[in-house]
Amino acid sequence: MVGQKFVELLANHPWFEIVALGASEKSVGKEYADIVNWKMCSPLPQSLSKLILQPCLPNFPCSLIFSSLSSDSAGSIEDSFAKEGYLVVSNSASHRMSPNVPLMIPEVNSNHLDLLNYQRSTGKIITNPNCSVIALAIALKPLIDLWGIEQCLVVTLQAISGAGYPGVSAYDIIDNVIPYIDQEEEKVEQEMLKILGSLENGAIKKYSMRVSAQCNRVPVVDGHMACISVKLKKKAHSDMIIRSWKDFSKNQKEQDLPTAPLESIIYHDAKNYPQPKLHKNLNKGMSVSIGGLRECAVLDWKFNILSHNTIRGAAGGSLLIAELMKKKGLI
Amino acid sequence: MVGQKFVELLANHPWFEIVALGASEKSVGKEYADIVNWKMCSPLPQSLSKLILQPCLPNFPCSLIFSSLSSDSAGSIEDSFAKEGYLVVSNSASHRMSPNVPLMIPEVNSNHLDLLNYQRSTGKIITNPNCSVIALAIALKPLIDLWGIEQCLVVTLQAISGAGYPGVSAYDIIDNVIPYIDQEEEKVEQEMLKILGSLENGAIKKYSMRVSAQCNRVPVVDGHMACISVKLKKKAHSDMIIRSWKDFSKNQKEQDLPTAPLESIIYHDAKNYPQPKLHKNLNKGMSVSIGGLRECAVLDWKFNILSHNTIRGAAGGSLLIAELMKKKGLI
Amino acid sequence: MVGQKFVELLANHPWFEIVALGASEKSVGKEYADIVNWKMCSPLPQSLSKLILQPCLPNFPCSLIFSSLSSDSAGSIEDSFAKEGYLVVSNSASHRMSPNVPLMIPEVNSNHLDLLNYQRSTGKIITNPNCSVIALAIALKPLIDLWGIEQCLVVTLQAISGAGYPGVSAYDIIDNVIPYIDQEEEKVEQEMLKILGSLENGAIKKYSMRVSAQCNRVPVVDGHMACISVKLKKKAHSDMIIRSWKDFSKNQKEQDLPTAPLESIIYHDAKNYPQPKLHKNLNKGMSVSIGGLRECAVLDWKFNILSHNTIRGAAGGSLLIAELMKKKGLI
Amino acid sequence: MVGQKFVELLANHPWFEIVALGASEKSVGKEYADIVNWKMCSPLPQSLSKLILQPCLPNFPCSLIFSSLSSDSAGSIEDSFAKEGYLVVSNSASHRMSPNVPLMIPEVNSNHLDLLNYQRSTGKIITNPNCSVIALAIALKPLIDLWGIEQCLVVTLQAISGAGYPGVSAYDIIDNVIPYIDQEEEKVEQEMLKILGSLENGAIKKYSMRVSAQCNRVPVVDGHMACISVKLKKKAHSDMIIRSWKDFSKNQKEQDLPTAPLESIIYHDAKNYPQPKLHKNLNKGMSVSIGGLRECAVLDWKFNILSHNTIRGAAGGSLLIAELMKKKGLI
Repeated sequence: MVGQKFVELLANHPWFEIVALGASEKSVGKEYADIVNWKMCSPLPQSLSKLILQPCLPNFPCSLIFSSLSSDSAGSIEDSFAKEGYLVVSNSASHRMSPNVPLMIPEVNSNHLDLLNYQRSTGKIITNPNCSVIALAIALKPLIDLWGIEQCLVVTLQAISGAGYPGVSAYDIIDNVIPYIDQEEEKVEQEMLKILGSLENGAIKKYSMRVSAQCNRVPVVDGHMACISVKLKKKAHSDMIIRSWKDFSKNQKEQDLPTAPLESIIYHDAKNYPQPKLHKNLNKGMSVSIGGLRECAVLDWKFNILSHNTIRGAAGGSLLIAELMKKKGLI
Repeated sequence: MVGQKFVELLANHPWFEIVALGASEKSVGKEYADIVNWKMCSPLPQSLSKLILQPCLPNFPCSLIFSSLSSDSAGSIEDSFAKEGYLVVSNSASHRMSPNVPLMIPEVNSNHLDLLNYQRSTGKIITNPNCSVIALAIALKPLIDLWGIEQCLVVTLQAISGAGYPGVSAYDIIDNVIPYIDQEEEKVEQEMLKILGSLENGAIKKYSMRVSAQCNRVPVVDGHMACISVKLKKKAHSDMIIRSWKDFSKNQKEQDLPTAPLESIIYHDAKNYPQPKLHKNLNKGMSVSIGGLRECAVLDWKFNILSHNTIRGAAGGSLLIAELMKKKGLI
Repeated sequence: MVGQKFVELLANHPWFEIVALGASEKSVGKEYADIVNWKMCSPLPQSLSKLILQPCLPNFPCSLIFSSLSSDSAGSIEDSFAKEGYLVVSNSASHRMSPNVPLMIPEVNSNHLDLLNYQRSTGKIITNPNCSVIALAIALKPLIDLWGIEQCLVVTLQAISGAGYPGVSAYDIIDNVIPYIDQEEEKVEQEMLKILGSLENGAIKKYSMRVSAQCNRVPVVDGHMACISVKLKKKAHSDMIIRSWKDFSKNQKEQDLPTAPLESIIYHDAKNYPQPKLHKNLNKGMSVSIGGLRECAVLDWKFNILSHNTIRGAAGGSLLIAELMKKKGLI
Repeated sequence: MVGQKFVELLANHPWFEIVALGASEKSVGKEYADIVNWKMCSPLPQSLSKLILQPCLPNFPCSLIFSSLSSDSAGSIEDSFAKEGYLVVSNSASHRMSPNVPLMIPEVNSNHLDLLNYQRSTGKIITNPNCSVIALAIALKPLIDLWGIEQCLVVTLQAISGAGYPGVSAYDIIDNVIPYIDQEEEKVEQEMLKILGSLENGAIKKYSMRVSAQCNRVPVVDGHMACISVKLKKKAHSDMIIRSWKDFSKNQKEQDLPTAPLESIIYHDAKNYPQPKLHKNLNKGMSVSIGGLRECAVLDWKFNILSHNTIRGAAGGSLLIAELMKKKGLI
């Protein structure tokens, strides 16, 4: 799913062009159109349909590599490319928690790019967080900046495209909810603190907050929802919180990257918003939608967030990272 | 949905027999089979299909009334029956929070029946809690008895049958989640504290705990899920918590009521259990399923619960109340 | 659904501008944004959100009226506008089978516009066919032109948005199929023969073919599928049939209307195509997708078709009619 | 799915007892509970949970084998058991069209058991038809007996459990229809004619009728629907057709087999019946539901059928075959 979404988003990109596609052994040597089980709603880009798939060896005629490999093979392959001087923007989990690898959301922690200076290879690896974490970190960032967060409880309602393809069996999920996703709660809890952490002496100091996640799979195709409760370090008023989300979006408008949304955060006033069906594709799937801010009798505030898990949460997020690096002259 | 479920469950009940069905003005005088849009998976009971619908006036040839009226009309109609000496077991919200009306889950607070002594009418009204609250109160009861609960955060994933019929539009909920159900969070937070409260000097003293609920509608037909985090008043070990749920079921076996499940609580060891599809119908829909007990980094413990919302959470729960009263000689 | 789709499509139309919105009594006088329960995935167009809803009386400051009224009120309201000189493009069923009212699909029977000359009012009424019929008529048109069709059996698998809003109850359709849609089979059978008929002496002579339809509702949000078997009047080869569909699209390219798709028909070679999810939005929802042509052991040929029921099958189709009339100088 | 359904149905069978479970190499030697990914809604039968899985070699301590192997391995394994004297009742496709193997639906063609006399092995193989064919053959049988059928057009709307487990990807089928199932149309067309054929001189003479099938996958968990049109050899009246279905059920009541439904066919008068959700489980999933009989403008009559694909259409159907053979003294 994510690989195809990369292809779809890159097909008409103003800055980047796909020159090579790497694949596993059984597909190498074949045309992309013959091997791909194309699932996107736009047609397979004609310009790429005849591209011959290559082995994942570091001899691609380019400088930038997007990786959406599975976790078991991603680590070593990404290393091999980095060693040979490529910039690897990875959507895989393998390197996310490595000390010198930025876990990047351009709107949240672009200063973490400095970590790249501490990577030893000639090339570099930079990673995109887990699809559930990205929206969460974006939503929390303005609250942290203004008031700080002490505690955060998250319950996710995650779409089936997050499990890849074929992913979840229809027999398991139609008319059902599965209250477990392997390793997901750990990823949410750990990655969040790294992303929100500060850069001190060339290392990330994790953000100090207690986080607990409960992750569910629901019968929704695209769009991860999350119900969140937070305890702030200082008192805040609901109007101020909503304004912090709206102002956050304003600040981001300066970035001017091709994949950057007009608004990174959209706050919806309707009590029953956001919803995957209605809001996942806002700003081409790159906006995080927030709604339902109300007082929480246990922590301080509760609210709901939504983002498109294969765009904002994966391929689109990775693309935004690459665009940021290009703009900063790092590619 | 709940009215039909009452009819289905009562059709073959060993103790009770349906002698009259009340309906709104436009249906009065017609045969039940002609007016009902039967949605249950078992056929419409033949013995009831020709029953002539009556106006909701307190002249029914019986002593026990089950009410699943909508909240706008339930209050006054239930009062009129109670005044005339009927015992009214209600699934409606109207009287749930009235001081002298028990909000009853037989396994949890049967001692609250004493409240009936303080009702002024010749008949009595007793109520069944909201469909989301019942499973929650059952799951929390053993923890409260052994350790006490200080804080409880609940996120529900509720089935569409909870909205009645026609209820939720398919256009709104297929491939979607709606993070809002009107008045539901308030009901969960308020009803829970009454149910779990203690009876002191003829009045309920609400249980002292901070509760916060976030309620979502998901595309599941039957079976409400909930993700729960609790902070206990005393330290507990996970083994002890699980044992408390299993022992709770044992204690309930003595009740010996026709609709009582063999186990009020079933704890599932599989990490991805419970699930609506697999577990909603355990013990004919009367068991509460619990699973996924694990430590919570914010409060103490988190876990998942599931129950069948129109059986355990509505018609079956009401029936159990009536059976309890019959057994205690109150009918 | 169709009304909102009209608003969405017209919001940025190059030729037409919404100047007034008519509504039923209870909404008159209110702002559109306050009254609409907006369900489209793009935001409510800002330019229209403050438009004050008007009664459906023929005093709108414009010459063109789009109607998506329910069948019970459409007839007389549309008549009243036509009498006062408006051109009414209607998506309602009321006038579809009236002798002098064109039942129009621009690519199929634009010559039927001549019927307008026989309408007695100063304004005119022109209608858009039922959402299931449009794709069918487009798919059959090239076969009729080249070989003629003797018999046609259609089984539809229709999306829930075809039932309007709130339309189908989620309780009825999740994990289910309903093999009946009120009046739908009659509409398919009757409207098709009028659309495909010839204009002789100022009247439509219905196309002579036996048609039988079986209509089902399936749990799909948008996109009507149909399984079709046809018996041709002359022998045809499968290659020729597929070519007739591809050539049909070529012929249409000349029309050059803003809403006209690049291809009215797209033939898909993959055996498991078309599918609602993948193909409903091709060419902004205006293309009819066809696939799976294979021999039929009972009639001659069988194949599958798909179209977006609220775009090609309703609002988009109506818009195309209006554009055609504008281009022909009839507005 | 079918294997587990066999286990569920056999766990409490009055005549048969599971003494051994065969499995593929990687599962051999392990306990059933450890290897099975139990998906049934009733709990895994305790009596079987510790059964050690055996290799599929013909040394099982019993005389009757139920096979639900995949088609690639079923043929040779079933042969090896038959050679060693076992009676094999198979739900696999491998032997269905073999000349001397009965393709059996007890209510339809029990006389085909004579074919077993022509099998050369000491044991015997008997097969259960494809899940889509069984309901169809049952529905057509009374029409054939009374009027004969010349032509039959079938469009199926098949449940995802028919594809086994994990089977269909949720990504592919939620909010979608797939108008293709590999080899399914061929199976429907071929198997039907064998089942409905007559036994002449020790061989099946296929029934002479033109059949055409179009098979679709829909997002329904259990319950295959089909829309059918038939041309009869003689004129029939709708009342007579409905009576033939009702009488057919009466005739079957004599069989008195444990798994036989009270009614093999249930005709529903409601225009929008049958539906998977409401009727799949009638008579424990063993009844075929029929509804919507109406005239067809192309052939003579059209109607809808429904059956539970993993019970009537697979495990339950196989069990019924075994029961028939037991009763006839063939086991």
